Amino acid sequence: MTFQFVRPPVADAAPMSPSELEAALHAIGAERYHNLHPFHKLLHGGKLSKPQVQAWALNRYCYQAAIPRKDHAVMARLEDRELRRIWLQRVLDHDGRDADQGGIERWLILTDHLGLDREYVISQQGALPATRFAVEAYVRFVWDNPGLVAISSCLTELFAPKIHAERISGMLEHYDFVEDRVMAYFRKRLDQAPRDVDFALRYVLDNAKTVEQQNAVLNALTFKCNVLWAQLDALYAAYVAPGMIPPGAFVPQEG
Amino acid sequence: MTFQFVRPPVADAAPMSPSELEAALHAIGAERYHNLHPFHKLLHGGKLSKPQVQAWALNRYCYQAAIPRKDHAVMARLEDRELRRIWLQRVLDHDGRDADQGGIERWLILTDHLGLDREYVISQQGALPATRFAVEAYVRFVWDNPGLVAISSCLTELFAPKIHAERISGMLEHYDFVEDRVMAYFRKRLDQAPRDVDFALRYVLDNAKTVEQQNAVLNALTFKCNVLWAQLDALYAAYVAPGMIPPGAFVPQEG
Repeated sequence: MTFQFVRPPVADAAPMSPSELEAALHAIGAERYHNLHPFHKLLHGGKLSKPQVQAWALNRYCYQAAIPRKDHAVMARLEDRELRRIWLQRVLDHDGRDADQGGIERWLILTDHLGLDREYVISQQGALPATRFAVEAYVRFVWDNPGLVAISSCLTELFAPKIHAERISGMLEHYDFVEDRVMAYFRKRLDQAPRDVDFALRYVLDNAKTVEQQNAVLNALTFKCNVLWAQLDALYAAYVAPGMIPPGAFVPQEG
Repeated sequence: MTFQFVRPPVADAAPMSPSELEAALHAIGAERYHNLHPFHKLLHGGKLSKPQVQAWALNRYCYQAAIPRKDHAVMARLEDRELRRIWLQRVLDHDGRDADQGGIERWLILTDHLGLDREYVISQQGALPATRFAVEAYVRFVWDNPGLVAISSCLTELFAPKIHAERISGMLEHYDFVEDRVMAYFRKRLDQAPRDVDFALRYVLDNAKTVEQQNAVLNALTFKCNVLWAQLDALYAAYVAPGMIPPGAFVPQEG
């Protein structure tokens, strides 16, 4: 698959305007965001068994649990105090603060409800190795790159509200083992993600001025789409087709 | 200089008890904490000129400004959500949150009062290269090491309240260009540092069980003492004796 928006860094190429860059970011999502993955279509279309949904939820936990570490890694690279103060909200959303237990806890309410042992989920022992590699690659990526690139990798949030809305309605409609209150994570993200991404998008459009910066930004978003896509690839291969579960990973128990 | 408490990792060495480990940590401070440095003695003994105090304040700004980045790097490594939630307070103290502008801002009030241009201070352009290398080594150290070791490197806070108290009284007594309100940073730290270090010390004593872990903990505290000591060495060499200011660094203007 070729990706037409990342141009080779030719010396005389002109930078895109902010609106062209924004369109190029959206084009990446239109081609690569994981709402296009067959596993996602099965999930929110009600085509998965409960054990398959369990496999999804416990693997996705690894991603959820790593998000605050990723955001701390972003902030460890940001020299600008104001920027850190704004970015901090993401950590507060996921880890919670004071009485609020945050998004990771809301995810565990979902896995509890699916009948998964909480200690087992948190241990990540049943997760697919490919899931953990993808997640750790994300944390490393933001640490290894400049702030602008790290921030760009979060722009999948541009596409998230749509997937969350689809997921809430699709899962509630199709699965009798999913009820409204356990979808709290996604419902909360419907408010949080747009607020976060408005800031991140504006920052990126204001700061990616050169061709090199714009290419780095587009590559970062592509990378992040790959992080999400690879997780669904691994789930599909292990739990749908060909159904080859790697040694040590969660084994569905029917009934 | 030899350091007797870091034992070679002999296979049959017995781990220290928690109280022995605590004593070994304090022994490092007694030998290596930067309150013992000649520059510190000059500073709080009123022996420095105003330009020398300016040099200290603008170099020390680099350290202050990096502390939240260091703590984010610590948290980027912590898998335990509860631990991250507790550690977060350090970032809130330094970066501030909502109306509170935090400790870095309080440091800038000090440099303002010393007559330094705020933009120049924040740019870090006048800081000694050795200062910036030491500070960056600290941020890298916590990222490169396991959580237990990263946390141990913060234990210089065990010794900080004494130095802050000395500094407040010494600087107010000796320098007519320092007044009470600009010492707000140190006054605040008198409350914050003991609270932080109580938690960190307990965590380290509870978790450093093997000889290898205990040696890593002691080495981390030694490393951190070196980070602080190297900054005062650089200040002494540039601004006291032999007084060789490296190219581009802050040049004192008398009068």
